[in-house]
Amino acid sequence: MESNEKVSPNHEKVLGRLLSLSDGIFAFAITLLILNITLPDSTTRAAVPQALLALWPKYLAFLISFVVIGLYWIVHVRQFRVIRKYSSGLLWLNLLFLMFIVLIPFSTSVLSDFEVTASVVLYATNMACAGFTATGLWIYAVRGKLVDEKLGPARVRRGIITNLIAPVGFTLSIGLAFINTNLAAYSWLLIGVAHRAVDWILKLPKSDEDI
Amino acid sequence: MESNEKVSPNHEKVLGRLLSLSDGIFAFAITLLILNITLPDSTTRAAVPQALLALWPKYLAFLISFVVIGLYWIVHVRQFRVIRKYSSGLLWLNLLFLMFIVLIPFSTSVLSDFEVTASVVLYATNMACAGFTATGLWIYAVRGKLVDEKLGPARVRRGIITNLIAPVGFTLSIGLAFINTNLAAYSWLLIGVAHRAVDWILKLPKSDEDI
Amino acid sequence: MESNEKVSPNHEKVLGRLLSLSDGIFAFAITLLILNITLPDSTTRAAVPQALLALWPKYLAFLISFVVIGLYWIVHVRQFRVIRKYSSGLLWLNLLFLMFIVLIPFSTSVLSDFEVTASVVLYATNMACAGFTATGLWIYAVRGKLVDEKLGPARVRRGIITNLIAPVGFTLSIGLAFINTNLAAYSWLLIGVAHRAVDWILKLPKSDEDI
Amino acid sequence: MESNEKVSPNHEKVLGRLLSLSDGIFAFAITLLILNITLPDSTTRAAVPQALLALWPKYLAFLISFVVIGLYWIVHVRQFRVIRKYSSGLLWLNLLFLMFIVLIPFSTSVLSDFEVTASVVLYATNMACAGFTATGLWIYAVRGKLVDEKLGPARVRRGIITNLIAPVGFTLSIGLAFINTNLAAYSWLLIGVAHRAVDWILKLPKSDEDI
Repeated sequence: MESNEKVSPNHEKVLGRLLSLSDGIFAFAITLLILNITLPDSTTRAAVPQALLALWPKYLAFLISFVVIGLYWIVHVRQFRVIRKYSSGLLWLNLLFLMFIVLIPFSTSVLSDFEVTASVVLYATNMACAGFTATGLWIYAVRGKLVDEKLGPARVRRGIITNLIAPVGFTLSIGLAFINTNLAAYSWLLIGVAHRAVDWILKLPKSDEDI
Repeated sequence: MESNEKVSPNHEKVLGRLLSLSDGIFAFAITLLILNITLPDSTTRAAVPQALLALWPKYLAFLISFVVIGLYWIVHVRQFRVIRKYSSGLLWLNLLFLMFIVLIPFSTSVLSDFEVTASVVLYATNMACAGFTATGLWIYAVRGKLVDEKLGPARVRRGIITNLIAPVGFTLSIGLAFINTNLAAYSWLLIGVAHRAVDWILKLPKSDEDI
Repeated sequence: MESNEKVSPNHEKVLGRLLSLSDGIFAFAITLLILNITLPDSTTRAAVPQALLALWPKYLAFLISFVVIGLYWIVHVRQFRVIRKYSSGLLWLNLLFLMFIVLIPFSTSVLSDFEVTASVVLYATNMACAGFTATGLWIYAVRGKLVDEKLGPARVRRGIITNLIAPVGFTLSIGLAFINTNLAAYSWLLIGVAHRAVDWILKLPKSDEDI
Repeated sequence: MESNEKVSPNHEKVLGRLLSLSDGIFAFAITLLILNITLPDSTTRAAVPQALLALWPKYLAFLISFVVIGLYWIVHVRQFRVIRKYSSGLLWLNLLFLMFIVLIPFSTSVLSDFEVTASVVLYATNMACAGFTATGLWIYAVRGKLVDEKLGPARVRRGIITNLIAPVGFTLSIGLAFINTNLAAYSWLLIGVAHRAVDWILKLPKSDEDI
């Protein structure tokens, strides 16, 4: 943090606080997931092993949400690595994105408590909203010339495409949820695969600029 | 963070920690809001869709509080972008401000559980106290010459006025709460509008210094 | 954060992480206090005003704990403003100090639920342990030459004395708790007064070095 | 944080965010431990002293988990003090490590509620997984040349060995858990002793590079 002798653009300072708030929210949201996993109050000493195994849908939901929040955090890191300026709109778009991140522990708890279509739709909608907001933030930042001016169009396009994989995948899974909830959940695994594949296909020359 | 070879004013270092604590508390308070939203224990699998829809007053309270905490965070960012020095009084005033931020998840849970006058008064009082403390902190910092010395009087006045919009709006809504609780709640939406309008009217030349 | 080309002492980097962890823990511990304040499940709509007023012992406990955690945070800021090096012992002493900070939400909840001697003793012991550990950390850092080498003996002594006020006050209040719990609680207010008085008496020339 | 004029490797910036997320998660996970300690709802005023004493298995579990999370935090600090570059793999390995840290409050609550073999096995497995992941991350970073290039093979080897002490100790304790749960728990104390002993035996010249 450089000291700023004059009242001048201090984009770095404000972006530093935006990242500090964002990392804090990511950290708490991802840690709150663990509060969904508890043994029933009625568990007896003898029943602990069975009770622990019976929690497997909760472990699975925890794992999926941990991976998705991790993925969105990496998306956020990638974006803000090249964002050099802020605007009022950027701060609010980032808060909107963080609101969907904060909702994830709730969606996760509903999903792990009730394996019904509504839970799957809620969960996929939450995740899709987070992803579309992240994409919107990226387009907003590029259009508003808030990103590094040396950023080429290939990198911009690549950012849009990789950003869209998760929310498009989750949106498609909403349709599957009405057919079969398990099918929808399994389809989420494909999102990770698709993400990796697109990263591979669109890969920039293996320079350091690529996460 | 520059290393400091001598025991000398290290205002930057202490302000860095103040911001680190503040961003942590903002992040935690905003994330705690989600704990207010839970499905009743008695929810059956078939009733999940209805139960999710029945939570709408909680979603609304979550949304309002998220926006207000976001607004106060932006106010805090704006202020500390130009504060260059600290004092013991500044640290304590900031802690007082943060205390009102920490109370928001409680006020929000009361508001979303009970739509009565007392809840609305509690909520509006909490928000007003946060806003007035932020304004007090700003005046204290300006008077104590803790802000950047190049800061002009227009910017100072603008800071006071924009800081006062939210707390004055919430204070006025307390009166409305005794007439009709919904009226009070809807009046909060005007705060956002008023904030935007004042930002527009008082706008500084669109230089980078404006958030 | 300077990049470090060589495997060399990087005290600044490690101290930066120590402060990052500490500020995070302070922020969460202080925010967790709010979880102690909840309306009873049996509260009816009509009874909300009375129920909110009946929570006053909880508000008071919240306020006291917020102020004390704030005080210990300021003590921590003061100390680490002049600590320039770390050692394995410093990391562990700081973790021990943070452990007592983490315990405060628990002690506070016991105190606000049960106004009995045992609660007051628990609370005062928790606070005293935190304060004595902070004093120990300061002496350890000075003896181990981890502090800025330009730090004079007056400043060191002043650090020890101001650090001791809170824990000595809380220790004395344990005795009072066996006579009258309210007496003990009121005596805590004197700690703040004593702190301010000693700051005044021992005040260094009003240079920037003084918080 | 240096401003980055060109779209170029910005390893420092990304590693800064990785550390910010990690410290937030460590701070939150370590603070969540306190939520395991609560007095039973049925406690009467007269029974508070006994009830507080009856919580001793919870205090003990809190203490052990606090020390182990502290130990893993120090391991993390040591590693990232010399890691200079990131890769996609490093980000995900770190997230995997953090996932095991986030699980610790759950394992701790099971352990403190039920002193049975299954709880001890769960706890030791959780801790072992965290430790092995940390070791894997270190080997990955060294092989991928993400660490400081001046890092000698002695330091690398030392890192592997010290990293392995905790997870190997916890793995061995799983066997003991099937004989006697207390025996397993006491064996964890040896991990601390072994850690200190190995630090002593493998000690690098007392230069600043040693934590």
